[in-house]
Amino acid sequence: MIQTIFNHRSIRKYKTDPVPENVLEQVLTAGTRASTTGNMQVYSIVVTKDQALKKQLWEAHFKQDMVLQAPVVLTFCADFNRFTKWCEWRRAHPGYRNFLSFFTAAIDALLAAQNVALAAEDHGLGICYLGTTTYMAEKIVDILKLPELVVPVTTLVTGYPDESPGLTDRLPLEGVVHQDRYHDYTRKDIDRIYAEKEALEETRELLKINNKETLAQIFTDNRYTKKDNVFFSKAFLKVIEKQGFRKDE
Amino acid sequence: MIQTIFNHRSIRKYKTDPVPENVLEQVLTAGTRASTTGNMQVYSIVVTKDQALKKQLWEAHFKQDMVLQAPVVLTFCADFNRFTKWCEWRRAHPGYRNFLSFFTAAIDALLAAQNVALAAEDHGLGICYLGTTTYMAEKIVDILKLPELVVPVTTLVTGYPDESPGLTDRLPLEGVVHQDRYHDYTRKDIDRIYAEKEALEETRELLKINNKETLAQIFTDNRYTKKDNVFFSKAFLKVIEKQGFRKDE
Repeated sequence: MIQTIFNHRSIRKYKTDPVPENVLEQVLTAGTRASTTGNMQVYSIVVTKDQALKKQLWEAHFKQDMVLQAPVVLTFCADFNRFTKWCEWRRAHPGYRNFLSFFTAAIDALLAAQNVALAAEDHGLGICYLGTTTYMAEKIVDILKLPELVVPVTTLVTGYPDESPGLTDRLPLEGVVHQDRYHDYTRKDIDRIYAEKEALEETRELLKINNKETLAQIFTDNRYTKKDNVFFSKAFLKVIEKQGFRKDE
Repeated sequence: MIQTIFNHRSIRKYKTDPVPENVLEQVLTAGTRASTTGNMQVYSIVVTKDQALKKQLWEAHFKQDMVLQAPVVLTFCADFNRFTKWCEWRRAHPGYRNFLSFFTAAIDALLAAQNVALAAEDHGLGICYLGTTTYMAEKIVDILKLPELVVPVTTLVTGYPDESPGLTDRLPLEGVVHQDRYHDYTRKDIDRIYAEKEALEETRELLKINNKETLAQIFTDNRYTKKDNVFFSKAFLKVIEKQGFRKDE
């Protein structure tokens, strides 16, 4: 277990070999063993293998090759549709058309996703999360025909790895952990926490290629810009609303 | 690994034995190996062991006994504060005061939390998630002195178990998995998916104790009511805004 966690790498190149049905079933069942609010299981997992649908998802996910290459695409959705239907057909009056319920369902979906990721890796499969899920939620809703009270929150691609990348660097533990309560960062703290990352050979190369002065500028100017963030914020909030998660409020 | 996932139970009674420092360190480090958006690690983990602070957290978390009993309380926060400070001190212009960035950071925090949960269980520790974190986020922000761009999204209590509950029931896999795209539920589907849960001895007892006709009514009338959901939706949205995550929009 611990071994699987510490060996995690995101895999971006996949072999064409399919994932055996019994393996996929065990991996998905592992997802359902994650903690879930009040045992409501307010999430759904859409397993897409169909080539034509995968092509549409690939387009939605900024045409990242791994979406086409990996044999299986798993879209994890916050889902109060099933639970609400159950309530309605059991003479109960559901009240889950609100932001809190959306977020509760998103937590459920994300904990299940991480169980699926680790179970897949334990079986020798590779995985990669697609952050583009929230950016392109509206398109994904259309492609997967997600009904009201269902919103995609993350995606995993999985299959057998066709690359073996090294371990990614991480900040030192003290950089993300606080004792007892939050201790805000001084400039000295930030210098110390980011020193190793900034000194990496990989960072130097990135600065040269991107013609930037600091690694932080590559994030703010190229990778995660304010303009994009604001644009996709509006888009994601619109989907949450369109899918009915603000109607009660 | 798979074994640990399939053995998961939420533990609500704890021994007083402390968690050894080296174990806690490995468990937290396991959290940092989870996938993180663009390797930004936009989360923080607040490790609370101090009895006085734990008492305040216990009050915030609806006075659930396990918060006082468990020797360690871990609050997982969406955190763009550290990253933003790094950008500002590196002549970069961060743009993370928006809803998308909050949600991205929440995903990071939740994937790290599930790694921590599994690593803890692998070490023989018990864990329990506290859903009250989002309900009471404002109070938790005060207790833990969370600065701007930091919002608590979930909490884990951990320690050595003083109970060994049975495995919790789950819906059949077909109840939460969809092939290729979402196939909405018919009344027949719902009847089939919930049949086992509704037939449990535990369910019959709950109906008797609560004097209700259906299990769904216990959820809508007692456990997760529309009134509470709407109230805590407003409160949580207010915290997200107050912590600065809507300023760019």
